[in-house]
Amino acid sequence: MALDRLIEKIAQMQNPTVAGLDPKLDYVPEYIKRKCFEKYGETLKGAAKALLKFNKELIDALCDVVPAVKPQAAYYEMYGYDGMKTLYKTQEYARSKGMYVITDGKRNDIGTTMEAYANAHLGKVKVGSTEYEPFLGDALTVNGYLGSDGIKPLLNVCKENDKGIFVLAKTSNPSSGELQDKKIDGVPIYEIMGKMSEEWGKELMGVYGYSGAGIVAGATYPEQIKRLRELLPHTFFLIPGYGAQGASAADIAAAFDKNGLGGIVNSSRGIMCAYQKQRCDEREFAAAARQEAVRMREEIMNAVGTISL
Amino acid sequence: MALDRLIEKIAQMQNPTVAGLDPKLDYVPEYIKRKCFEKYGETLKGAAKALLKFNKELIDALCDVVPAVKPQAAYYEMYGYDGMKTLYKTQEYARSKGMYVITDGKRNDIGTTMEAYANAHLGKVKVGSTEYEPFLGDALTVNGYLGSDGIKPLLNVCKENDKGIFVLAKTSNPSSGELQDKKIDGVPIYEIMGKMSEEWGKELMGVYGYSGAGIVAGATYPEQIKRLRELLPHTFFLIPGYGAQGASAADIAAAFDKNGLGGIVNSSRGIMCAYQKQRCDEREFAAAARQEAVRMREEIMNAVGTISL
Repeated sequence: MALDRLIEKIAQMQNPTVAGLDPKLDYVPEYIKRKCFEKYGETLKGAAKALLKFNKELIDALCDVVPAVKPQAAYYEMYGYDGMKTLYKTQEYARSKGMYVITDGKRNDIGTTMEAYANAHLGKVKVGSTEYEPFLGDALTVNGYLGSDGIKPLLNVCKENDKGIFVLAKTSNPSSGELQDKKIDGVPIYEIMGKMSEEWGKELMGVYGYSGAGIVAGATYPEQIKRLRELLPHTFFLIPGYGAQGASAADIAAAFDKNGLGGIVNSSRGIMCAYQKQRCDEREFAAAARQEAVRMREEIMNAVGTISL
Repeated sequence: MALDRLIEKIAQMQNPTVAGLDPKLDYVPEYIKRKCFEKYGETLKGAAKALLKFNKELIDALCDVVPAVKPQAAYYEMYGYDGMKTLYKTQEYARSKGMYVITDGKRNDIGTTMEAYANAHLGKVKVGSTEYEPFLGDALTVNGYLGSDGIKPLLNVCKENDKGIFVLAKTSNPSSGELQDKKIDGVPIYEIMGKMSEEWGKELMGVYGYSGAGIVAGATYPEQIKRLRELLPHTFFLIPGYGAQGASAADIAAAFDKNGLGGIVNSSRGIMCAYQKQRCDEREFAAAARQEAVRMREEIMNAVGTISL
């Protein structure tokens, strides 16, 4: 009912990083696209099959180095329902390889509608007398703009299914401050959202001191990360913005506690497109991704220190 | 590039209402479920097919009375990729019957990821040399918590494809005030979000005085609707909360200008479940929905007055 399974995997692998699976078709090697287009045509289905093949090879190469993957829902939705099938199959494959799956959907709504999202991504849905898992996330990113009515339905589903959430607090983008940095009685909104998450998390406390209600805190704002860590002792951080968005390993160090716990750092393009950056043969894309993941682990672990439970 | 197509349909039908298609399986008549389960089993696919049949009959019954439908993405995602196929097929059928389609997805992200959502729901996606429409919304609800980086990618897609958005400002739920009513220098956040939308809308101005960047403003907060209408002369309102959530026609009157334009009022359960409330034969569900839609039109039009372009 918390992020304990994620924390255990991080400690076991001594690697607090997650590989973002945001597969734009441009990132997929030509030989994979060619094969899928030959079989399914230049169609949404053909594109979706190419993404799945790309993802599976990445998962094979990363699963003994990186504890988690974070598929970004937008890049699957953009290929329609075939794309959503690839999201499911990617999650299924990552799970079969022992990886923790964080679905980056930033979903938000209220009441029974939010419950529908919660069951879709973290829970089970009953049809007649049979229960199904529509999608296979272990955690889901969510947007708390609608208040507690939008988050509470998730907490029950997390409890029942041993799942977690990450609430957007301080996002990594340049304009995140337009709303998130505005102050209410001297307190910026991202802190208010963080405190609400710490509060929601009380219902989902885990055994390692962190709850199942984490937050998203961008590596591009190290001062804010530091402040949030001080304020939110039981809140785990999902940290985007490392690498391609410009943040360094030093920028994220403040997210971690004295045991090296407290956060997980995402890299998407850095890992997926390593073969392009390294200018190696496109057939070596998975090996290049693994090499970059190993390099990233070293860099992050130098900043974090040993992770102990 | 604005909401003009929607406004024209509203004026033509003299009906500023939208039928929410949030089809929980409990709402679907037994005879439809039985038929689909016999053919596809008690599976996610069987459920998704039942929802599609339900939606199509509702659309047939409503399309000459109600100008628009609003499928809520959560209720399709909860049946997995089969559910997402039903979302697409529902949109396709509504479009074929001349209805305007507002996809209620409350999507949000930044930069190229938001662009992926925009193309998925409002735009086109290229595979090889062919362009596809992954989903078929005319407008999409979005969440602006991430600031302009999360909205600007939508504006371009709206311009190119004659589509619109509705940004969450003041949502209809009881806890919406937890964040949205908090004040920054004396101004509540829902007003700030509204003003940002009015600003974003400048790039999408239409011929009837309203832009393509509308807002969501809950009927359950009539004072706030009044204030927002005063502040945001070019912003069209999508108004949830009528009926099942407790708001009356009088509560929404302030959203409309002297020409009867300015908003569209949603009813979901009220229309979909009319046959349950009226306790009529479940095979009459579509006729009952139509009857309720006609009643709602009368009630709303009494409060709004004649609509003229």
